[in-house]
Amino acid sequence: MILRMDRIPIELPKPKNPPPNAAAAVQELLGGRFGEMSTLMNYTFQSFNFRGREQARPYYDLIANIGTEEYSHIELVAYTINLLLTGTTERGDDPTATPLAAGTDARNTYHFIASGQSAMPVDSMGNPWTGQNVFSSGNLKLDLLHNFFLECGARANKIRVYEMVDEPTARAMVGYLLVRGGVHVVAYARALEHLTGADLSKLFPIPDISNKKFPEAKKLEDQGLHLKMFRWSIDDYKRVGEVWNGPHPEDGQELVVEDTIPQGAPPPDLDAEPQLTAPGVDAEFLQEAAKRLFGKEAMA
Amino acid sequence: MILRMDRIPIELPKPKNPPPNAAAAVQELLGGRFGEMSTLMNYTFQSFNFRGREQARPYYDLIANIGTEEYSHIELVAYTINLLLTGTTERGDDPTATPLAAGTDARNTYHFIASGQSAMPVDSMGNPWTGQNVFSSGNLKLDLLHNFFLECGARANKIRVYEMVDEPTARAMVGYLLVRGGVHVVAYARALEHLTGADLSKLFPIPDISNKKFPEAKKLEDQGLHLKMFRWSIDDYKRVGEVWNGPHPEDGQELVVEDTIPQGAPPPDLDAEPQLTAPGVDAEFLQEAAKRLFGKEAMA
Amino acid sequence: MILRMDRIPIELPKPKNPPPNAAAAVQELLGGRFGEMSTLMNYTFQSFNFRGREQARPYYDLIANIGTEEYSHIELVAYTINLLLTGTTERGDDPTATPLAAGTDARNTYHFIASGQSAMPVDSMGNPWTGQNVFSSGNLKLDLLHNFFLECGARANKIRVYEMVDEPTARAMVGYLLVRGGVHVVAYARALEHLTGADLSKLFPIPDISNKKFPEAKKLEDQGLHLKMFRWSIDDYKRVGEVWNGPHPEDGQELVVEDTIPQGAPPPDLDAEPQLTAPGVDAEFLQEAAKRLFGKEAMA
Amino acid sequence: MILRMDRIPIELPKPKNPPPNAAAAVQELLGGRFGEMSTLMNYTFQSFNFRGREQARPYYDLIANIGTEEYSHIELVAYTINLLLTGTTERGDDPTATPLAAGTDARNTYHFIASGQSAMPVDSMGNPWTGQNVFSSGNLKLDLLHNFFLECGARANKIRVYEMVDEPTARAMVGYLLVRGGVHVVAYARALEHLTGADLSKLFPIPDISNKKFPEAKKLEDQGLHLKMFRWSIDDYKRVGEVWNGPHPEDGQELVVEDTIPQGAPPPDLDAEPQLTAPGVDAEFLQEAAKRLFGKEAMA
Amino acid sequence: MILRMDRIPIELPKPKNPPPNAAAAVQELLGGRFGEMSTLMNYTFQSFNFRGREQARPYYDLIANIGTEEYSHIELVAYTINLLLTGTTERGDDPTATPLAAGTDARNTYHFIASGQSAMPVDSMGNPWTGQNVFSSGNLKLDLLHNFFLECGARANKIRVYEMVDEPTARAMVGYLLVRGGVHVVAYARALEHLTGADLSKLFPIPDISNKKFPEAKKLEDQGLHLKMFRWSIDDYKRVGEVWNGPHPEDGQELVVEDTIPQGAPPPDLDAEPQLTAPGVDAEFLQEAAKRLFGKEAMA
Amino acid sequence: MILRMDRIPIELPKPKNPPPNAAAAVQELLGGRFGEMSTLMNYTFQSFNFRGREQARPYYDLIANIGTEEYSHIELVAYTINLLLTGTTERGDDPTATPLAAGTDARNTYHFIASGQSAMPVDSMGNPWTGQNVFSSGNLKLDLLHNFFLECGARANKIRVYEMVDEPTARAMVGYLLVRGGVHVVAYARALEHLTGADLSKLFPIPDISNKKFPEAKKLEDQGLHLKMFRWSIDDYKRVGEVWNGPHPEDGQELVVEDTIPQGAPPPDLDAEPQLTAPGVDAEFLQEAAKRLFGKEAMA
Repeated sequence: MILRMDRIPIELPKPKNPPPNAAAAVQELLGGRFGEMSTLMNYTFQSFNFRGREQARPYYDLIANIGTEEYSHIELVAYTINLLLTGTTERGDDPTATPLAAGTDARNTYHFIASGQSAMPVDSMGNPWTGQNVFSSGNLKLDLLHNFFLECGARANKIRVYEMVDEPTARAMVGYLLVRGGVHVVAYARALEHLTGADLSKLFPIPDISNKKFPEAKKLEDQGLHLKMFRWSIDDYKRVGEVWNGPHPEDGQELVVEDTIPQGAPPPDLDAEPQLTAPGVDAEFLQEAAKRLFGKEAMA
Repeated sequence: MILRMDRIPIELPKPKNPPPNAAAAVQELLGGRFGEMSTLMNYTFQSFNFRGREQARPYYDLIANIGTEEYSHIELVAYTINLLLTGTTERGDDPTATPLAAGTDARNTYHFIASGQSAMPVDSMGNPWTGQNVFSSGNLKLDLLHNFFLECGARANKIRVYEMVDEPTARAMVGYLLVRGGVHVVAYARALEHLTGADLSKLFPIPDISNKKFPEAKKLEDQGLHLKMFRWSIDDYKRVGEVWNGPHPEDGQELVVEDTIPQGAPPPDLDAEPQLTAPGVDAEFLQEAAKRLFGKEAMA
Repeated sequence: MILRMDRIPIELPKPKNPPPNAAAAVQELLGGRFGEMSTLMNYTFQSFNFRGREQARPYYDLIANIGTEEYSHIELVAYTINLLLTGTTERGDDPTATPLAAGTDARNTYHFIASGQSAMPVDSMGNPWTGQNVFSSGNLKLDLLHNFFLECGARANKIRVYEMVDEPTARAMVGYLLVRGGVHVVAYARALEHLTGADLSKLFPIPDISNKKFPEAKKLEDQGLHLKMFRWSIDDYKRVGEVWNGPHPEDGQELVVEDTIPQGAPPPDLDAEPQLTAPGVDAEFLQEAAKRLFGKEAMA
Repeated sequence: MILRMDRIPIELPKPKNPPPNAAAAVQELLGGRFGEMSTLMNYTFQSFNFRGREQARPYYDLIANIGTEEYSHIELVAYTINLLLTGTTERGDDPTATPLAAGTDARNTYHFIASGQSAMPVDSMGNPWTGQNVFSSGNLKLDLLHNFFLECGARANKIRVYEMVDEPTARAMVGYLLVRGGVHVVAYARALEHLTGADLSKLFPIPDISNKKFPEAKKLEDQGLHLKMFRWSIDDYKRVGEVWNGPHPEDGQELVVEDTIPQGAPPPDLDAEPQLTAPGVDAEFLQEAAKRLFGKEAMA
Repeated sequence: MILRMDRIPIELPKPKNPPPNAAAAVQELLGGRFGEMSTLMNYTFQSFNFRGREQARPYYDLIANIGTEEYSHIELVAYTINLLLTGTTERGDDPTATPLAAGTDARNTYHFIASGQSAMPVDSMGNPWTGQNVFSSGNLKLDLLHNFFLECGARANKIRVYEMVDEPTARAMVGYLLVRGGVHVVAYARALEHLTGADLSKLFPIPDISNKKFPEAKKLEDQGLHLKMFRWSIDDYKRVGEVWNGPHPEDGQELVVEDTIPQGAPPPDLDAEPQLTAPGVDAEFLQEAAKRLFGKEAMA
Repeated sequence: MILRMDRIPIELPKPKNPPPNAAAAVQELLGGRFGEMSTLMNYTFQSFNFRGREQARPYYDLIANIGTEEYSHIELVAYTINLLLTGTTERGDDPTATPLAAGTDARNTYHFIASGQSAMPVDSMGNPWTGQNVFSSGNLKLDLLHNFFLECGARANKIRVYEMVDEPTARAMVGYLLVRGGVHVVAYARALEHLTGADLSKLFPIPDISNKKFPEAKKLEDQGLHLKMFRWSIDDYKRVGEVWNGPHPEDGQELVVEDTIPQGAPPPDLDAEPQLTAPGVDAEFLQEAAKRLFGKEAMA
């Protein structure tokens, strides 16, 4: 069971006149093979499926806890896409004005037909996320190795999307995710090291470029965000610290577990897009509906 | 952002000698078009994508809150599958004994090859869940109508899986989900009624069979579980009560919002399956590894 | 069994210099999840699969009859696409002139490689229509609810494609389909009302914009086209009138069953595209072939 | 546009206690790559997309006309599946009796969960039919060659399904389709011959087994059914005879065009399956509903 | 078993400033339904699956031998794509310079996110190649007919891609493949003729345009390349000549078997793309690594 | 370019009365996500796409060389499937005898309908292999890490299929592939070690069970087969030895490069299956056809 907060991990700057293809590219980080839907669902399923967890509790706690953080990552990417799509077409309620003309040449027409200029579980080519992206073999070493690879692949994708799109909304998001994804890379490497005694620290970074080259990530690493494993639970997953400890493989600083989660920020309020009838109901009508159904005091 | 608890909504009875095809059938309720992955992801994306939410807050709160509950449903179905698969093959570490012979004729061979006899995001035919199952048009009435239909379709699937499988583990799960899914059916109908003034109460139930015909559901409805909208958040989604109110369309009892969530139960500890090397590491080794890496006190 | 006429429901204006991406967008209305392939195949399969039809004949007749009309809708969308693609590349038979250069940047390259600049069973992103789009549960209320939702979703898609593309060919087609699809929305709502007694009329329209806002649709509604259920059979489906009756939920005019079908128009003759060798045989050759094989009189 | 008759091409014998896997196998002939959905949709799209039809009218007429016949083939296969699935589970309205237990081990669980024991647009493995199965290149020779190959591949599939299933319902259907599909094989070969002058008659039959080896087909061929091209239109497609003429390549009898279509038979009335709530409404209720809504005379 | 040479069939000219959409279009010839992955895998599987090969050895040899040649075709198309993508973005190692901006509007974003500006097993719309493209019925006539159709369809695709893209790299590749694919068309026609006695020579060419119209192909046909069946084996497939003989159906020249394969050319050395960290390791580092691990002499 | 030999790596014992579901399970090792189609195509594409190969030649040689060996693995698995399917149905040419009845309950009906009881590029659930299984990022470390993970995942699948199927044909194949796949696991680990200096040897084996536990593999390892990197080229890929050297991580024996390939064995001659018309032509007919077309001497 989960509890949800109406907050996202960081505040996202609002873009001005974003091109719709920026949002199409960012979709790779949401619904692509290496997108956040994949990290979320891989660790979530692996946690459900973990056999013999009493003997291997710290590993179970680690996977479940990271899986929980990934939820905040899908919402961060989704809100980035939503902001990048807001205002990309002409606002108005006259369909004959061809208000969605901009969508016709856009790379992802689903954004304008299937969704109300908003995020979908698809990748940068509009292909849907699929359960085939989930790997859960039951063998702990193999699952950890998979996760280590998945996070490295995800890191490559984030870097490339950063290099494709210079919208500050997108870069703030990627910067944050590079740092947090970096935590997960290290965590799965540490888990493999603990299980086997192998020393994986010389593999870093994969791909061969440091987070420090990305100003939005560097700023956060300067604050030590890459050292912190948040514990995404009130009472559980307390043994993550048995894996998450020791020096960071890139800068040698000490890894720490935080018993809290990021303070975050309220999700952006997304403007209505009347030409898409999204949401299609105006405040006045709703006010009236509420009165009719609940009486005046309900909306007071 | 979410917080996760190491608890599932209800305690699941452990099956004895379950047939592997029972688990294969139950997969429909997890990764099928109308499975819990679909309800979870539909409402989650709709909440991210909700435009004009300030004007329509109660509807936003409703969708976000129900979406949060669905997480507990995917885990409940996943654990049911995991229990139904535990012990379906011959335990042991000698591969020449053909310990997985039972898997060869099983309907879902992925359970034995890709997973460690555990749940996957696939349906009853082994086809993966896909992002095409998510509908998020941005138009509030259309999204609510979709959700109402989705829950009715999900209800039909649950009923039919109940009729296919008589394992108590599966039936306890379906009974619970029929009741909670029933809450969601009513909630989306109420939301449409509030928005439009239409009276949908005469449509119930869809399909034409009452939850009372399912003993595991009836027991919970006798306790009033079908009347309660839990609020799956510490501080947010407080306006769900502006939609969730009035009499239940089937028995006329008053709908209520609970500011807490179900107490639930710890997730079952799944036995190791050594023939699948799941998890593949034994307690002794891990004990030793922990000592080597953290020192004695770490495991104390 | 069916009989086919070499006519389509309305005459389509020929576009001048259409952009190829207009055709790509219109594909959503043919091969998309909510396209006409979906409405055709849903109702067709539901009619084949209808159990207990003797007791519920009017509903069977309704679904079978609407399914039959949908055939005329797939052909209308297909011809729209074909006209929009005709002449989008440079005509000629010299491949070195790169006559298909315009296709390289077009959103749907299948139009230029797999097809001869013509319609395909794919959506606006080029993804193929799939049988997963067919819902046929066997439960009458659930199937009707599905159909009601499907038609509302299809309506949203049509509106949005109208707003993307201002080619008169496309708008004539969408205008007609908005009206006829509107008939189907009402029909499924009426069927649900008859079965259950619920009053769904206040839900209209979904999405929240009237057909009257679309000049091409308004013109047809002014002629009463939204009130008519055509009977697409010489001798059968005569009990549709037991469902299709009463006042229209939006303007209160009386619904009527017509025992005929639209007069329609001959399908447009599509110009050859020699650079695509479509059709690849010239009149002279065929004349000669006919003579050789059948004798002179055959082509007289 | 089409008109539909409430008749199917032949009468199908009702099976007794059919095994559900027979229906699963027959699905290949409906929703498989070489199933009737494919022949229907290939020729239908090719007819919509036919360029330069004025010059090549007989070929257009041929493709459009055969495409129209294919509709009667999808319904014939669908009804076969429906009959084969009727009664495969235990009838009753008590879900606790596990009435669908037989579905758990069945190869196609969608038949029992997604559908009401009825046909779906999927193949023998439950994979959905897809628009990728449609080939429509615009080049006439290539499209005809494709169709010739498609019909030969479809013939192979029919033969093999015949050899898998000995239910008379299935064999009556396959026997009929072997004969009618045989007409289409010959028709496309003739069209290629007419266009090019090549003599394809020595290729027959593909695969290397005669229809005469199948008693249900032989009986129909003895009546000359393999020689007849029905014209599936009241007024159109009249030039099919310019292609469909000359001696049959296997037995040398003269090919003929019939200006009528088969008399056919009423579709079987499918029994209700109450455990699936299919259709879920009983006669009494409907009678009452009709009275309530239409007045007594409506049902008279 | 195979042996591989570090050579490709012809030398490819390097493009200057190629547009990324040229590479996207060429993908159809690699990973499309009629791409070289399909020809390779169809004939490879058919050769593995060939039953009764002792009796039908020449046909087995033919299919296996052509399948072997197809490997050289996938590599030729892959290198064409790789050259067309090289240099399409801005080289450099500063991610903040948005070096991949050109990828955002490119039709195939996978080229810039998933791959290092290189070839993928996908088609011109980015949809992955699938095993559904393989046909292997076991019936020899049917498999040969399929192969004949497949090669004709592949020919149509090559012609159309030629007409879309005027980059000399692409046209050199297509010219070569038109000639070699033409050999395969004739080979499968000859095999069918030998098996059945039918004369298919009048069907040529499909589509209705000669290879001579393509200067890059004409040049090679003037050298007789369309007459040669290379034998892609040191010791095996020696009976291909029992099928590959007689006059070429288009120009009447004698078909010949060559016991050697084309001399070919070394594959192009693809420049590094540092902004993609492809390959991500520089010469200096690797030199150093080699010394560290193997000692100085290893790299000498 | 490649040359092919009419030999497979080892001789496969012929099974007696194999159950068809054994073949269905083995398909996972051919067309599954971790099957040999995946290893073949991953390394093949990575070799085509390798950038900067002059600086990193030993790694290029390694990947290209291993990719070449994988061809021999797909053929070995394919022949295993073919042998396991031979004779699973009733031989004969009378279709009314229902000779394929055994296929109706088989897990993979494609084996009996689409193929002539032979291998297909599908997995154990009949889902087709897809290009999505290919990873080729262009970043050398990331591609190597992927390959290391892929081989470990493939190893897990092989072990599990071994445990499902006790047919000696299948076990001989798996035993061989465990050894050769083990070589590839070590090779990619060594490559990563050379590139980075990390020591991965303690990770072995993944999953946690030694090849020595599998008698068919142990026998081959006792002969040193796990130490040998064959060079699958006459003249190329000579620098593989710069990576493939040092002690084996599990038993410490010295790794060696062989300049030859395995001697192998002729592929099994697969019996005809007349009920499937596979191949559908008898020796007598072919003899006659050869005479007619080539004259007597051709077959001498």
